[in-house]
Amino acid sequence: MHPMLVSIDPLKPAQGQKGLMNRWHPDIPAVATVKQNDVFKLGSIEWTGGQIVNSDNADDVANVDLTQIHYLTGPIAVEGAEPGDALVVDILDIQYYEEAPWGYTGIFDMENGGLFAKEFRTKAAKAIWDFEGRFASSRHIPGIRFAGITHPGIIGTLPSQELLDTWNKREKALIDAHPGASPAVALPPIEKGTYIGQDISKEVFDKIAREGARTIPGREHGGNCDIKNLSIGSRVWLPVYVAGAGLAVGDLHFSQGDGEQSFCGAIEMSGVVTLKCSVVKQGVEKFALKQPIFLPSPIDPMYSQQLTFEGIGVGKWITHLKKLGYTIEQAHLLLSAAPVESHVGAVVDVPNACCTLSLPQQIFDRDILPNPDGIERRDYGQAALRSDGQRCFDPFEAKEKQ
Amino acid sequence: MHPMLVSIDPLKPAQGQKGLMNRWHPDIPAVATVKQNDVFKLGSIEWTGGQIVNSDNADDVANVDLTQIHYLTGPIAVEGAEPGDALVVDILDIQYYEEAPWGYTGIFDMENGGLFAKEFRTKAAKAIWDFEGRFASSRHIPGIRFAGITHPGIIGTLPSQELLDTWNKREKALIDAHPGASPAVALPPIEKGTYIGQDISKEVFDKIAREGARTIPGREHGGNCDIKNLSIGSRVWLPVYVAGAGLAVGDLHFSQGDGEQSFCGAIEMSGVVTLKCSVVKQGVEKFALKQPIFLPSPIDPMYSQQLTFEGIGVGKWITHLKKLGYTIEQAHLLLSAAPVESHVGAVVDVPNACCTLSLPQQIFDRDILPNPDGIERRDYGQAALRSDGQRCFDPFEAKEKQ
Amino acid sequence: MHPMLVSIDPLKPAQGQKGLMNRWHPDIPAVATVKQNDVFKLGSIEWTGGQIVNSDNADDVANVDLTQIHYLTGPIAVEGAEPGDALVVDILDIQYYEEAPWGYTGIFDMENGGLFAKEFRTKAAKAIWDFEGRFASSRHIPGIRFAGITHPGIIGTLPSQELLDTWNKREKALIDAHPGASPAVALPPIEKGTYIGQDISKEVFDKIAREGARTIPGREHGGNCDIKNLSIGSRVWLPVYVAGAGLAVGDLHFSQGDGEQSFCGAIEMSGVVTLKCSVVKQGVEKFALKQPIFLPSPIDPMYSQQLTFEGIGVGKWITHLKKLGYTIEQAHLLLSAAPVESHVGAVVDVPNACCTLSLPQQIFDRDILPNPDGIERRDYGQAALRSDGQRCFDPFEAKEKQ
Amino acid sequence: MHPMLVSIDPLKPAQGQKGLMNRWHPDIPAVATVKQNDVFKLGSIEWTGGQIVNSDNADDVANVDLTQIHYLTGPIAVEGAEPGDALVVDILDIQYYEEAPWGYTGIFDMENGGLFAKEFRTKAAKAIWDFEGRFASSRHIPGIRFAGITHPGIIGTLPSQELLDTWNKREKALIDAHPGASPAVALPPIEKGTYIGQDISKEVFDKIAREGARTIPGREHGGNCDIKNLSIGSRVWLPVYVAGAGLAVGDLHFSQGDGEQSFCGAIEMSGVVTLKCSVVKQGVEKFALKQPIFLPSPIDPMYSQQLTFEGIGVGKWITHLKKLGYTIEQAHLLLSAAPVESHVGAVVDVPNACCTLSLPQQIFDRDILPNPDGIERRDYGQAALRSDGQRCFDPFEAKEKQ
Repeated sequence: MHPMLVSIDPLKPAQGQKGLMNRWHPDIPAVATVKQNDVFKLGSIEWTGGQIVNSDNADDVANVDLTQIHYLTGPIAVEGAEPGDALVVDILDIQYYEEAPWGYTGIFDMENGGLFAKEFRTKAAKAIWDFEGRFASSRHIPGIRFAGITHPGIIGTLPSQELLDTWNKREKALIDAHPGASPAVALPPIEKGTYIGQDISKEVFDKIAREGARTIPGREHGGNCDIKNLSIGSRVWLPVYVAGAGLAVGDLHFSQGDGEQSFCGAIEMSGVVTLKCSVVKQGVEKFALKQPIFLPSPIDPMYSQQLTFEGIGVGKWITHLKKLGYTIEQAHLLLSAAPVESHVGAVVDVPNACCTLSLPQQIFDRDILPNPDGIERRDYGQAALRSDGQRCFDPFEAKEKQ
Repeated sequence: MHPMLVSIDPLKPAQGQKGLMNRWHPDIPAVATVKQNDVFKLGSIEWTGGQIVNSDNADDVANVDLTQIHYLTGPIAVEGAEPGDALVVDILDIQYYEEAPWGYTGIFDMENGGLFAKEFRTKAAKAIWDFEGRFASSRHIPGIRFAGITHPGIIGTLPSQELLDTWNKREKALIDAHPGASPAVALPPIEKGTYIGQDISKEVFDKIAREGARTIPGREHGGNCDIKNLSIGSRVWLPVYVAGAGLAVGDLHFSQGDGEQSFCGAIEMSGVVTLKCSVVKQGVEKFALKQPIFLPSPIDPMYSQQLTFEGIGVGKWITHLKKLGYTIEQAHLLLSAAPVESHVGAVVDVPNACCTLSLPQQIFDRDILPNPDGIERRDYGQAALRSDGQRCFDPFEAKEKQ
Repeated sequence: MHPMLVSIDPLKPAQGQKGLMNRWHPDIPAVATVKQNDVFKLGSIEWTGGQIVNSDNADDVANVDLTQIHYLTGPIAVEGAEPGDALVVDILDIQYYEEAPWGYTGIFDMENGGLFAKEFRTKAAKAIWDFEGRFASSRHIPGIRFAGITHPGIIGTLPSQELLDTWNKREKALIDAHPGASPAVALPPIEKGTYIGQDISKEVFDKIAREGARTIPGREHGGNCDIKNLSIGSRVWLPVYVAGAGLAVGDLHFSQGDGEQSFCGAIEMSGVVTLKCSVVKQGVEKFALKQPIFLPSPIDPMYSQQLTFEGIGVGKWITHLKKLGYTIEQAHLLLSAAPVESHVGAVVDVPNACCTLSLPQQIFDRDILPNPDGIERRDYGQAALRSDGQRCFDPFEAKEKQ
Repeated sequence: MHPMLVSIDPLKPAQGQKGLMNRWHPDIPAVATVKQNDVFKLGSIEWTGGQIVNSDNADDVANVDLTQIHYLTGPIAVEGAEPGDALVVDILDIQYYEEAPWGYTGIFDMENGGLFAKEFRTKAAKAIWDFEGRFASSRHIPGIRFAGITHPGIIGTLPSQELLDTWNKREKALIDAHPGASPAVALPPIEKGTYIGQDISKEVFDKIAREGARTIPGREHGGNCDIKNLSIGSRVWLPVYVAGAGLAVGDLHFSQGDGEQSFCGAIEMSGVVTLKCSVVKQGVEKFALKQPIFLPSPIDPMYSQQLTFEGIGVGKWITHLKKLGYTIEQAHLLLSAAPVESHVGAVVDVPNACCTLSLPQQIFDRDILPNPDGIERRDYGQAALRSDGQRCFDPFEAKEKQ
C-alpha cells in the first residue's frame, strides 16, 4: 500500500488541518521527506479550503474570501534534490474522495474576484458537478457529460529567497505602473489569510506572511499554470531552488477547458494525488530549464470530433451555446469546465490575431453541428445564481434586442 | 475528371495570370460559377506571387514587395447563394504541383514586413522545404521531417459594400489611435500593388484599388486566419454577403505550427485545391454565424507524443532547440513550419497568463526528451541567410554571454 | 457516496465470501436489486479466487484448481428488466484495492489448463505486476511500463433455462464430435468447484452445479469475451433473458493485449467496479441484439506509435522480443498483458490468412524500432518459473541451434 | 519533379502495357533501377487489369478471368541490395489518376472466385465508389462517405529460386491434402493468364509461367497482405532474396476494412505510388526478419467513435446494417470497403474465440447507435447486381421468415 503522507478531511475547513499551505516561501519546513522513486499519496483540499458547498445557490461564491487561496499540500522534501537540479515528478493518479464525489465551477462577482472580461459585468454563479466514476455531469448544466482530464492546477517547488525577492520586486513594479487597475495586474503579499498548517515559530510565520508569494500566477517554479494536459500520466521537470526541492501541489481539477475562462473555471475538487519523484543533477543547466517542461499524458480522454469557432473577437461560440438553449451563465461555466480546446492561430495577422475554440461533439447528448434546418433550442434551466437573483450581463442578448 | 476552373502556372509570376486577386471588394466579378455540390479545382499561386525562389540565400525575402500580397484565386460564384445564407465549403484536397515539389518558410527583415517580436531584431532568412509525397524536409533545417497538415491560409467570401466600409472605418480608427506604430496596427487600402486578373474597366479597377480591403487580417468573412486545422477534410461554414458568395481562396500552406510565429511562417506553396460548395438558406441567422465555424479534419496527421513547454514568457522552447544544435533562425523557422501545438492555458492567472507550446517528438530523427545525461548538441548548419551575412539578434546567446 | 452492493476481501479466498458465483444459471437468486440509473459498486475477486499469490515462483499457477473459475460478482437484478429487453450498462470505473496494488499474468502448464499453442509445450510461469496509480510495471519483465486499459474480462446476464439448455446441447455435441481432444474443445458442466455465495437450498444448488454453464467461453449473453476495449468508459447493450436481467461481472483485468495469448494472459486483479444500468424495452428486437454490442471508451490510453508484424504464421514477433533480450516466457507474458493490438488482415488470402500484431513503442524504456546497427540485446532476467525449474519449450531457440 | 519509372494507362487493359507482371519469380528482369533514397513513382493498374468497369451491373465481375490477377508493377532493382539485407521502403504517397477518379468493390460469384463464407452462396455484385479528393462515396451504397486509408494491397520482393521452390512444395502439399476442396486451399502455378510486360525470351517466360508463384497469398516476402494500415506514410522492412531486391507493388486500395470480407473487398483502383528505398545490410539477421515488419502511418484517418460488435459467430453486425436499411449485398460491400476495424479478442476462450468488429459512426450521415426508440429503416436502393437478377443468399432474412 502506498503511504498517505498528508491526510486531510475534505468535509472540514482547511483551516486547522495539517500539511497545508497557501503561500510560496523558502522558510516553510517540509512536512514529509520521500526517497527518490518511492510512490506516495497526498490529500488535497479544494482551492478555497472548503468555502464552497454542494448547494443550489451561489451566495458562497459571492462571499468567498480570496486572501486564503490556494490551499496547497506540502512542501515535500525529496532526498538528494539540490538547487540547480531538475525534479522529475510523475503524476500517477488523482482520485476524488468517495465521501465527496462532486466538484464545482464558479463565476465570481465583479466586485469580489472578478478577473473575467469586463463586458459581462459578472455576478456570482456556480455549477455543481456530480462525479460518476471517471465522468462528470451537472444538474445546473443539463445535456452534457464528459470524462475528466484530471490534473493539479498547481504544482511547483519552493522558491529560494533570492527568487522570491525577484518575484516580489517584479510584481510590485507592475502594480506601481498600473495604479488602481481593476482587475488588479498582480497580487502582492498579504498577511491576512496566510495559512501554514504546521507548528512553526511566530517569527517564521510572520516572515512567510509578510513576504510569501501569492498563489495566483504561475512563475518560473511552475505554480498555478492551470494546464489541462499536465494531467494524470504526465511527467514534469521542475527547477529546484532549495535543498529538498519543496514540492507542493493542489488546486485539483476534475476537468478544465483550455483558457479556464470563468476564473475559478475548472471543476474544483478535493482529492488524493499519487506521485513519484526523482532528481536529475544539474538539470537546470542540462535542459535550459527556465520553467517547467512536461510530457502530456497518453491517457487523456480523446474527443476527436469537434466544432471549431474562428475567433477574431471573443464570445462567438457563446451565441452558439445560447442557440442550443444555454443561458449566459451556463455558457461561461460550460466553456470553463468541459474539455474544450483553444489553439493559438496566427499571432501576426494584425489587427485581428486569430484564436480558435473547439467544442467536442461527444460531450453533448445531442447533435450540435450546424443543421440546415437550424438549431433546436431546448430548455436547460439555469446555473446556481445568487439568492438575490442578480445575474451576469448578457451582451449578446442586449445586442439582439437593439 | 473534376474541372479546373482557374489554371495557373506556378513557375511564372502571378502578375499577368488570370483569375487571381489580391484585395477584397464586392465589385470584383466572379471568374467562374459553380452549381451546388459540384466538385471543382482551383490553381493557386504562393502568396507573394512568385517573388520567392528555391535558392540558398534570403535576399528575395529581404526585398519582397508586400503591397502585392496575397494573390488569391477567385471569386467563385455559387449558384443560389444570397446575402444572409451560409456557404458550406468542403476542402476535399490540396496538392502541390508536380513541377514545383517545394515550399518555403521565411523570416522578414525588421525593416520590411517584420511583424515579429521586436526583441529579435529580425533579418531576412528562409528555409526551403522539399516535398516527398505527403512529407516535407529541409536542407536548411536538417534532422526533422513531418507530414503536412495542408490547408489554405486564406478562405473567405466577398464582403458587401456595407461590410467593407465598416472594416475600413474600424481599421482607420485603429491606425489613427496609434500614430507611427511599428509594427503597424493595421494596413489600410493601398493602390500600389493591387491586382485583379480579369478584364475589368479602369473605373471598377480604380475603385477596388482605392477601397479594397488588404488581405492580412482575418475578418468576419473568414479571410486570412492561418488556422492549421482548417485543412484537407474540413467543412467550413462562411457567411454570405453578396449574391453568389464570391468565394476566394489562397495562401496555401503545406504545413504550419500553431501561432505561425515568424510571420510568413507557414510552408508557403503553390498548388491545386479541390472544393465542393453548398448553401444553407438563412444560415447566418440559423447558426448565429458572425464569423466562420468549421469541423476539423478527420485526416490530419497525428503526432501524439509531445514535449510541452509552459510559457509564462516567450521563447523558452527556443533555448531547448538551441541545446539540440539549431540556430536562432532555424528555431524560428522550425516552430513556424512544423506541426507544433500551442494551447491557451489559463487567461486569468495575472500577471502571467499561461500558454503552452508542444513539440512533437516524432518529427525529429532523434530523441529530444530531457535525458539525465544532458542533451547532445549536433551541428545542423544554418538556414538560408541574407547574402550580406546579417542575422537575427539572439537574446538567449546574448544573455548567456553576460 | 455510491453504495457498495457486494463487499469482498481481496486478501482472503473467494470460498466463503458472499455475493460471488462461478456458474451461469437462471436459478441463482439476485444478491441485490438496483434502480435504473443508480450508480453502484461491486467488489470483485481475481478470477481464481485467490489461488495465485504475489511471489517469485509459479508453483501456485502449476497447481491451480481450474474447476473453480471464474468467481464473478452477482447476479444483480435491475428493476424493470424483462426478457427481450436490452440492458444498458455503463462501466464508470474500475479500481484495484489499495491493500492489493498488484496483479499477475500466468502461463499454465500444458498438463493443467494449457490451452496454449502446443508447439510451446508450456510449463507454468508468471509475472507479478506492480501498480503505481494507473500504470503497471513488473519485476519479472523489466524495461516496460504502461497505462491500463482496465476492463472486466467477463460481463453478462443470466441465461434463461431455455438458452442454458441450448448451450449445453450445443457444447455437448461439439465434445462428442471430438473425443479425447486436447486441449478440450468445450468444458461441460461440472459439480466439482461450483460456488454460489448465498444461502440457497441444497436442491437449488445441486441443480445449478449439475447444469450451470461454465464461465470459459463468451456466449450470446456476453460472458467471457476478454475484449480489452470493453473498458472503463464503455457502454454495453446486453440481451435480457430473465426478469431483472441478472447482471454478473468479474475477471477484472488491469490490462490485456488483443488475443490474450497466454490463456490467463491478462493482468488479473481484484478490484471494485462502478456501474450504472438502464433498460431499453424490447431492445433485442429493436437492435437485432443477438449478442452484446458496445461503444469503446473515449478514455482508453493511446499509444499511437507502433511496430507492426505481418503474421502469416504465429510468433515472428517473439523473435523480435528475444532479440531485445526477453526470454520465451517473458515474451509470452508481455504480449498477453501489454496493450498490443492484433488486427485481422485479409481473411481471404488462402492459404495464408493475414493478421497483424502491433507493439506500442512507448511502453518500452528504449527504442525497439529496427536500427541499421542492429538491436542491442539486454539482460532482462526471467519471469517467475516453477520451483523445479521446468520451462516452456522455445521453438525459436531450437531452430537457431539446428 | 520525381521521375515516373513505369507509366501506365489506366483506361486501357493491362495486357500489352510495359512494366507489369502477375507472377512472382526470380527470373523476371528488373524494369528499372533506383539509387537508395531517390524518390520515384510507379503507375499501377487495378488488380484485374481493367476487366471491371464503371457501370451499374455486375456482369463484369461475374465473368472475370482470375488467372490474370494481380497485375503488379515491377520489379524495381535497388542499388546495393543483396540477399540477406533488409529493404526499407517508405510509402510516400498514392494518388488515383485524375482521368479515373473512381474505384470498385466486388463480390464474386460462388462459381468464379467465391472464397466468401459459403452460407451466403454469393452471386456477383459490385459497388462503384466516386472519389472526391481524399474521400469516397458510392451511388450503390448511399448514406456513407469516408476518407481513404490508401494502401497497396501487395508489396513484396522477388523470391529466390530456393524460396520459390519451398513455396511451391509447401502449397502443393496443402492442395494434395485437401483434394477437391472448395474454396481451394491454395492456388498452384498456372501458365494461363501469365503476363510479364517486358521483352524476354520465350524460354524465360515459359519457366516463369510454369513455376511462378501466384499472387493470392501473402508469404515471407510480403506480397498480398491486404493490410489497411500499411498505407501512405508507412515504412516497411522487407527481406531481400535476390540481388537488387526486385521490389514489386500493386493492387492499390483506396480503402479497405480489416478482414476484407468480400474477397475483392477493398476499393480497388488504378493509381500512382510514390516510393523511396534504402537498404540495411544483413537486416534479415539483425532484425530476425522472417517476414515484413512496418511502422503504421501517422497520417491515417482517425474515426474514433465506433460501435463495436462482439462476435462469437460471424455476421451479427450485418443484421444491424440491415436494420438501417442496407441489403445483404450492400452490407457485404460496405464492410469490405469502409475503414471498419476488426480486433482479435481472446483466442483461448474455447469453443467460442472472440473477435470484434467496429463500425465508425462518423462515416455514416446519420446516427447509427442503438436508440431507445429503435432504428429507423431507410431505403438505400441496392448494389450493382448481375443483369440476370441473381442475388446472394441472405441467411438472416431466411431465419426471420421461419
